[in-house]
Amino acid sequence: MTKMKAAVFVEAGRIVLEEKPIPDVGPLDALMRVTTTTICGTDVHILKGEYPVAKGLTVGHEPVGVIERLGSAVRGYHEGQRVIAGAITPSGWSNACQCGFGAQDGAGTAHGWKPLGGWRFGNTIDGCQAEYVLVPDAMTNLAVVPDELSDEQVLMCPDIMSTGFGGAESGGIRIGDTVAVFAQGPIGLCATAGAKLSGATTVIGVDRIAGRLEISRRMGADIVIDSSREDPVQAILRLTGGRGVDVAIEALGIQDTFEACLRVLRPGGTLSSLGVYSGDLKIPLGAFAAGLGDHKIITTLCPGGKERMRRLMSVIQAGRLDLSPMVTHRFKLDDIEKAYDLFSHQRDGVLKVAITP
Amino acid sequence: MTKMKAAVFVEAGRIVLEEKPIPDVGPLDALMRVTTTTICGTDVHILKGEYPVAKGLTVGHEPVGVIERLGSAVRGYHEGQRVIAGAITPSGWSNACQCGFGAQDGAGTAHGWKPLGGWRFGNTIDGCQAEYVLVPDAMTNLAVVPDELSDEQVLMCPDIMSTGFGGAESGGIRIGDTVAVFAQGPIGLCATAGAKLSGATTVIGVDRIAGRLEISRRMGADIVIDSSREDPVQAILRLTGGRGVDVAIEALGIQDTFEACLRVLRPGGTLSSLGVYSGDLKIPLGAFAAGLGDHKIITTLCPGGKERMRRLMSVIQAGRLDLSPMVTHRFKLDDIEKAYDLFSHQRDGVLKVAITP
Amino acid sequence: MTKMKAAVFVEAGRIVLEEKPIPDVGPLDALMRVTTTTICGTDVHILKGEYPVAKGLTVGHEPVGVIERLGSAVRGYHEGQRVIAGAITPSGWSNACQCGFGAQDGAGTAHGWKPLGGWRFGNTIDGCQAEYVLVPDAMTNLAVVPDELSDEQVLMCPDIMSTGFGGAESGGIRIGDTVAVFAQGPIGLCATAGAKLSGATTVIGVDRIAGRLEISRRMGADIVIDSSREDPVQAILRLTGGRGVDVAIEALGIQDTFEACLRVLRPGGTLSSLGVYSGDLKIPLGAFAAGLGDHKIITTLCPGGKERMRRLMSVIQAGRLDLSPMVTHRFKLDDIEKAYDLFSHQRDGVLKVAITP
Amino acid sequence: MTKMKAAVFVEAGRIVLEEKPIPDVGPLDALMRVTTTTICGTDVHILKGEYPVAKGLTVGHEPVGVIERLGSAVRGYHEGQRVIAGAITPSGWSNACQCGFGAQDGAGTAHGWKPLGGWRFGNTIDGCQAEYVLVPDAMTNLAVVPDELSDEQVLMCPDIMSTGFGGAESGGIRIGDTVAVFAQGPIGLCATAGAKLSGATTVIGVDRIAGRLEISRRMGADIVIDSSREDPVQAILRLTGGRGVDVAIEALGIQDTFEACLRVLRPGGTLSSLGVYSGDLKIPLGAFAAGLGDHKIITTLCPGGKERMRRLMSVIQAGRLDLSPMVTHRFKLDDIEKAYDLFSHQRDGVLKVAITP
Repeated sequence: MTKMKAAVFVEAGRIVLEEKPIPDVGPLDALMRVTTTTICGTDVHILKGEYPVAKGLTVGHEPVGVIERLGSAVRGYHEGQRVIAGAITPSGWSNACQCGFGAQDGAGTAHGWKPLGGWRFGNTIDGCQAEYVLVPDAMTNLAVVPDELSDEQVLMCPDIMSTGFGGAESGGIRIGDTVAVFAQGPIGLCATAGAKLSGATTVIGVDRIAGRLEISRRMGADIVIDSSREDPVQAILRLTGGRGVDVAIEALGIQDTFEACLRVLRPGGTLSSLGVYSGDLKIPLGAFAAGLGDHKIITTLCPGGKERMRRLMSVIQAGRLDLSPMVTHRFKLDDIEKAYDLFSHQRDGVLKVAITP
Repeated sequence: MTKMKAAVFVEAGRIVLEEKPIPDVGPLDALMRVTTTTICGTDVHILKGEYPVAKGLTVGHEPVGVIERLGSAVRGYHEGQRVIAGAITPSGWSNACQCGFGAQDGAGTAHGWKPLGGWRFGNTIDGCQAEYVLVPDAMTNLAVVPDELSDEQVLMCPDIMSTGFGGAESGGIRIGDTVAVFAQGPIGLCATAGAKLSGATTVIGVDRIAGRLEISRRMGADIVIDSSREDPVQAILRLTGGRGVDVAIEALGIQDTFEACLRVLRPGGTLSSLGVYSGDLKIPLGAFAAGLGDHKIITTLCPGGKERMRRLMSVIQAGRLDLSPMVTHRFKLDDIEKAYDLFSHQRDGVLKVAITP
Repeated sequence: MTKMKAAVFVEAGRIVLEEKPIPDVGPLDALMRVTTTTICGTDVHILKGEYPVAKGLTVGHEPVGVIERLGSAVRGYHEGQRVIAGAITPSGWSNACQCGFGAQDGAGTAHGWKPLGGWRFGNTIDGCQAEYVLVPDAMTNLAVVPDELSDEQVLMCPDIMSTGFGGAESGGIRIGDTVAVFAQGPIGLCATAGAKLSGATTVIGVDRIAGRLEISRRMGADIVIDSSREDPVQAILRLTGGRGVDVAIEALGIQDTFEACLRVLRPGGTLSSLGVYSGDLKIPLGAFAAGLGDHKIITTLCPGGKERMRRLMSVIQAGRLDLSPMVTHRFKLDDIEKAYDLFSHQRDGVLKVAITP
Repeated sequence: MTKMKAAVFVEAGRIVLEEKPIPDVGPLDALMRVTTTTICGTDVHILKGEYPVAKGLTVGHEPVGVIERLGSAVRGYHEGQRVIAGAITPSGWSNACQCGFGAQDGAGTAHGWKPLGGWRFGNTIDGCQAEYVLVPDAMTNLAVVPDELSDEQVLMCPDIMSTGFGGAESGGIRIGDTVAVFAQGPIGLCATAGAKLSGATTVIGVDRIAGRLEISRRMGADIVIDSSREDPVQAILRLTGGRGVDVAIEALGIQDTFEACLRVLRPGGTLSSLGVYSGDLKIPLGAFAAGLGDHKIITTLCPGGKERMRRLMSVIQAGRLDLSPMVTHRFKLDDIEKAYDLFSHQRDGVLKVAITP
């Protein structure tokens, strides 16, 4: 067998299932047979032509699967192992990687840094909404899935959970902190869970959709605010007696939530930003204390690498968090175009879909 | 003697020398006889009415002097000791102080936080452009000056040096870093010196004034860029082979330099902001990598407290840095209105003035 | 009323209830009427004469009570408020405090540092096993108890919980870590809870007493090891596939557990030490990789101050942790000698006692 | 040409120059033609049989040279480039590497950690006291030498400088710190330089050899103590007014200096340990404040990787440090046995030798 099915970006508005050759395996690669994958908000941006990728590229960056074939230089794995790889697949050896910034991996550049360079699947190389996917730098990126965990249980690890938890971690949350998370989509929900797991004792989830606020509570929010009903900035300042929160996490990617984060921060607080923005941002003078408030703004791109994946899977295995409520719909790969239709229109209360080739 | 001379804010455009009563000393206070002080850019904002303070307030926040009288509860000092206090005088006991944010001291509030609350001299209480100044929470704030150091040698410690060094420290500079400092006024020059002292091996000073670039070299810049002659963003990207800098320090407080800092940052880099802004700021989408560049933006208000002052004086005592070239003009307190005139118009190449009552 | 009852150290082997004058209130002090307190292992060392204190000193350092009278310079509180103070009562203004080391507060020294200097109650000043206790530097140390919480619910905050959590925090625990806690007495149990609350996904509790291992599970241990039945070092290395743990917490204070911590650490791991040792310690060459294993050993003395207390109470208020199972016995202050007898002999499965004046 | 000369461990007491085949180049390797190398104290331990290596192994781990041949999978380099590699050559992709602990690289293990696993040259694979050396994981480890720098100028980067600076960095030195460095051999001298470069304002160098103390001053020590003439613990406590130092660096590897470090630390201070110990260590109860002094002990194995090398070379290129005074003797590879004789007996004031094949 030399052919496989793959969801391919054809042009703005069209991602279609096509036949492609199963790729050759280079010395450092591994070929993974995909058993479960999912669609991400970023894929919708690609679909709409808002984020440019090459025509003919296979999309998708959240693979769960089985090792089909290993590159000649790959050691420490064997065929048939069940594995995941992160959405971000750092080389491991670039200068950026050696500084702890694998997501900004500049493996091909003279100095070793490239913005977003670690994001390769479905961006600069073929992705995993396909029957097979080639995992680059396999020894850096393949993480073996514990037998006890199902595909769906680990399906959020490559991107959603790593990103959401990254937002909590970059916030430097300490025991006893009050944390607000703006937007409770999949990433915001994981940020909420990550904040709780990091020791925050008041986690406030904000969204406009009642169903999401309900899940927010299950993921660890102590308090939820429906921003379609009340101004979340006023509500949070009231809840904190005018003090504000220690850490505010932005999980939507728009001016409104970015700004709200600043407005609810106590002096010396941290805005941990996860959103993908589509325009310039404004920092309001007052909320920024004219630059004198000892504020921190930090952005985090989904951390990758096998050790990251191992840690995230250990959270699930230890029963600290159950992300299965997030998988609201299931599709066969053959029906992926229907899945895109549902997901891109956010119909039927969809949070995440599971795609099985 | 019960009266003293003090430079008082009367109305926008007028700071005048007046007679005022020498203040009473509360149990935790110390009365300092001021021997040397200086004028800060912030004082000019006050003079112009751009930063509001109460009419009748004595301005100034950079005191060097001698202990004249101690509050009844103050231990560990004696009258006649030569001391300084920081521009920021934290209480020591607020929640903000206990979290390490003395500059955001909310000593009077229920929750213990207040933006800029640690800045009291010449802001919420009488300042030190006077013959005497009352130092609040004296045990937290009075730092004894080593005999070897002159008044002028330590005159920059309370504000300029603490702020500039704070910018370098908040940047998290590591050995081998490349650092750009935008604007080489007094604070930028101290940030340049602080970056070098922190282990940066390429420190790039940027300004439009040739004289400042010359001092910048003396303060530790390896490379200087005259932004009146070339675009500093282009120049820095060229100098770093397209990689960008690890840390960029903003020391002016305008959109232009803030934005330039972002444009020269490598992915994962830190913008350490010291400027006092006077309007909303814009974050350009591209320079911010749409929120995916693992960037950090951090603001720092001048750290205060006696331990901070002790450390800064130790830098000077150890010969690591000589800030005396910064004192370009000297005035008696009686002539402080002339000093304001010179300093506010930035005439005659003035960097900092020394005022002696 | 000018007299009160107090548990006083008379000589090795004798702590007795005596009448003493209710203390005068200095300008920075607060007089607290004690409503609940407890006995600590350290008090037993004092009782036995193993830790020297002045004869006639009132012992005890874990006060819950009500503000009876405030010093003339104290602001922000009012009489009748229910409060706690930490076992460690830093001044807030010493150099050590300004460096974040309030437990090593050298308020009375020239340079501002003193080993254990922040521990004053029942050590260098009268403690709280009495009807009244004088809280020094009240504005730094008094934390208001939320109405929802009972005395017993916050009784562990001043020492046991602050120390145990401090061990987890000093370990720098990250999401996904494996942590072993050696000894599951009150402090070890709080370290176990703190490790879980910090994101550890495998928390291993070690002790020789079955009853403690049972509570250990309730406090958050994923795995417990009965060291009277199997060698915990072997067991932990087996459980971790030979890798070892990321962080090992010592909570007993003897060579055996200190050494076991080192033996179960992975390279680059952290030994977080909480125990009070009574002799020199040995670091075994092999477990220390001859000094080349990138190991860290860090000791933590109970953090104090009102912000610390506020954070710990927020953990309880948020329902993250219930320490009430630790209070196994209750006594009136009049019967404190019986309480010492029970506690010092560790009879009847005692973990902690509540003493009510 | 298929043969090369190499210094080979034959048996305890004998390292001899032998002919060996030039190694084959695997896909991830690079073959370096060595132009300059040196002998380390560790090599002397190997010579004496105190540190066991396989018979027939080529020793040496500090290579400067030229790329002779690149593995088939290596990108980003070309033959003829002048390069160095660290003494520690991490894989880049192990779990240890992904946690920032490349020196504890467990590339071959199931869990990815191995004590000292990153040290391969002259330990587990052939080293560089030879005409050629095979550099493993070349893309992680090869750092291009700037044209301006001579071989001897960068000869200390792979080990001595990386280790010494690592000691300063692990100490967490801040601006204004007082730091003591015990022993001023090559590593201690680099720790001294690293402490100064990190912002310490009082650096105290301790040794028994006058010549070394002289170099210590040149490397940045503000104060030197001849421990053959006075007790350094007493001297340091006197110099610091009884306060002690913020950071003490151990650079010898014996009980005496390890213990002295603890005795001169202020509470809350850090002992940064670089020495290779040859027996169990004792922690004295008093110096350790019975475990209650908030002390930190941290050990550091020489950090490796190309980014580390790049940073260290930038220090030299920027003129921050000149290590050439350390090269006191020069030998041809043919005379390496004489070099071992001189160096192992520490004759003729030798600090470091340069060996040129």
